[in-house]
Amino acid sequence: MNGILVVGSVALDSVKTPEGETHEALGGSAVYFSLAARHFAPVRVVGVVGADFPDKHRKMLVDRGVDVAGLQVLPGKTFRWAGRFGKDYNRARTLSTELNVFEKFDPMLSEEQKACPVVFLANIDPDLQRNVLSQMAGPRLVACDTMNYWIGSKKPAIKKLLSRVDILIVNEEEARKLTREPSNVRAARCLSEWGPGVVVVKKGEHGSLLFAHGRIYPFPAYPIEFVKDPTGAGDSFAGGFVGYISTALDKWSHVEHLKRALAYGTVMASFNVSDFSTRLLDSLTRQALDERARLYWEMLSVPSGVL
Amino acid sequence: MNGILVVGSVALDSVKTPEGETHEALGGSAVYFSLAARHFAPVRVVGVVGADFPDKHRKMLVDRGVDVAGLQVLPGKTFRWAGRFGKDYNRARTLSTELNVFEKFDPMLSEEQKACPVVFLANIDPDLQRNVLSQMAGPRLVACDTMNYWIGSKKPAIKKLLSRVDILIVNEEEARKLTREPSNVRAARCLSEWGPGVVVVKKGEHGSLLFAHGRIYPFPAYPIEFVKDPTGAGDSFAGGFVGYISTALDKWSHVEHLKRALAYGTVMASFNVSDFSTRLLDSLTRQALDERARLYWEMLSVPSGVL
Repeated sequence: MNGILVVGSVALDSVKTPEGETHEALGGSAVYFSLAARHFAPVRVVGVVGADFPDKHRKMLVDRGVDVAGLQVLPGKTFRWAGRFGKDYNRARTLSTELNVFEKFDPMLSEEQKACPVVFLANIDPDLQRNVLSQMAGPRLVACDTMNYWIGSKKPAIKKLLSRVDILIVNEEEARKLTREPSNVRAARCLSEWGPGVVVVKKGEHGSLLFAHGRIYPFPAYPIEFVKDPTGAGDSFAGGFVGYISTALDKWSHVEHLKRALAYGTVMASFNVSDFSTRLLDSLTRQALDERARLYWEMLSVPSGVL
Repeated sequence: MNGILVVGSVALDSVKTPEGETHEALGGSAVYFSLAARHFAPVRVVGVVGADFPDKHRKMLVDRGVDVAGLQVLPGKTFRWAGRFGKDYNRARTLSTELNVFEKFDPMLSEEQKACPVVFLANIDPDLQRNVLSQMAGPRLVACDTMNYWIGSKKPAIKKLLSRVDILIVNEEEARKLTREPSNVRAARCLSEWGPGVVVVKKGEHGSLLFAHGRIYPFPAYPIEFVKDPTGAGDSFAGGFVGYISTALDKWSHVEHLKRALAYGTVMASFNVSDFSTRLLDSLTRQALDERARLYWEMLSVPSGVL
């Protein structure tokens, strides 16, 4: 039995950026994560959509090898998000959020889903995240993403959740807000003390920080000339990162394994932002992914023995 | 004959940050650059101070091996700058700038200074930068720093200067403003077309980008838990970078050499921001510097052959 279970949002996004716009395009944290992680392991999505969810999206996911048996269909409309990115691509302005069927989301896992060795709890209500986790039959690796929407109102629930999490992936603003620490390094250290042995602080176009075994490892973003749409960058990053980690669960916390995983997360996000919605991830090949990961390491490395 | 000539400001800075403040402490681009570059080559400063410039500062520079023969003393007061950093350490708010004797700065190089093989033109009026360059006897390497103050008023002078420069070190805001390009990668490429084969775009706490031979290499900042005072970070970065480059002029533009130089610039800046004014750079040893550069590479590297 292998595979990654992801629970998160499945959405129709309307996004405007300086490079163009989309109207009700496929989106949502569980979707971006799945399309990224599928390169490394079978992925099972747990989520909810409305009766209006286009068949073509479901079909695309299935064609990419994603298991959508856990994608409930409820009467009503699919979750919708509308947002806008200005010249500062690092910050989205939310124009509207319609939870719709997402409000009634109450995931019940099947036996197959419960048995997944790896689970990724994407950006949903921390109480729901804990609920899903409680149904699991002892996963070997629990990772979870940011919960910006809930930091203000549900900090105790978040802390409870984190005590059962191995890997936390979080934005820098959220890391600082959660911990009230002024620097990313201190925020990562503090979050790690709440539970997760590994913390990744995402900084958007500025890269990320990996905190593991008491040490910090900084990573730059893969440099991109044309950013079209940053939507889903964090979730595709998480998909590449957790996906790669899942390929060697017996040594998942080794620093060298985590660093390679971080390279995959980084280049996955760089692909994702090069086109709107999931367009680029839909067609991305493992070969193109490996090639860019290799380029990324070449950029960073120098011959040893000289410094 | 070896050594680096630096022309730039020598200042008395009054700086306030969330961690404390200084009153008329030693500062200025030429000072930070010299204290950083001295670890790699003899440094000769060309600058100007007023009659009020404290002897102890001059003595400290001499004690650190910096040649201050080119530090003119004019009647009047030394250049003063006052600024404030908020929680966002990346942006200084200038409270006051008193040019004082700096307004009459008209550098005349001695024969020794003219013969330096490497020259660094720090942040001063681009016409002055060109004037200094014209006096040089054919330097093997010309590097220059950002000119934020003059981008609005002297863009033609900057472009003229850049046509004679090998290495440009520039802040990201300035790079974008100068070129009107929306991304750092495109801005670096454009600046390189104006002359400098090597362009470094500085992003403060987010690291830097190296552009060389048509390719981009991203570098994260060295992660720091406690930033006290970012003043001089860019100039100490330049000092470490150009200083290391000058140690092998026959292969200065090799990518591997540039990358190692960038590591030294990065860790130099990380030391500098850990205390106020030049306090940390005053006492920094080459051993501590090498040790952190080695740590920085360890952070970034993974064993080859796996990706």
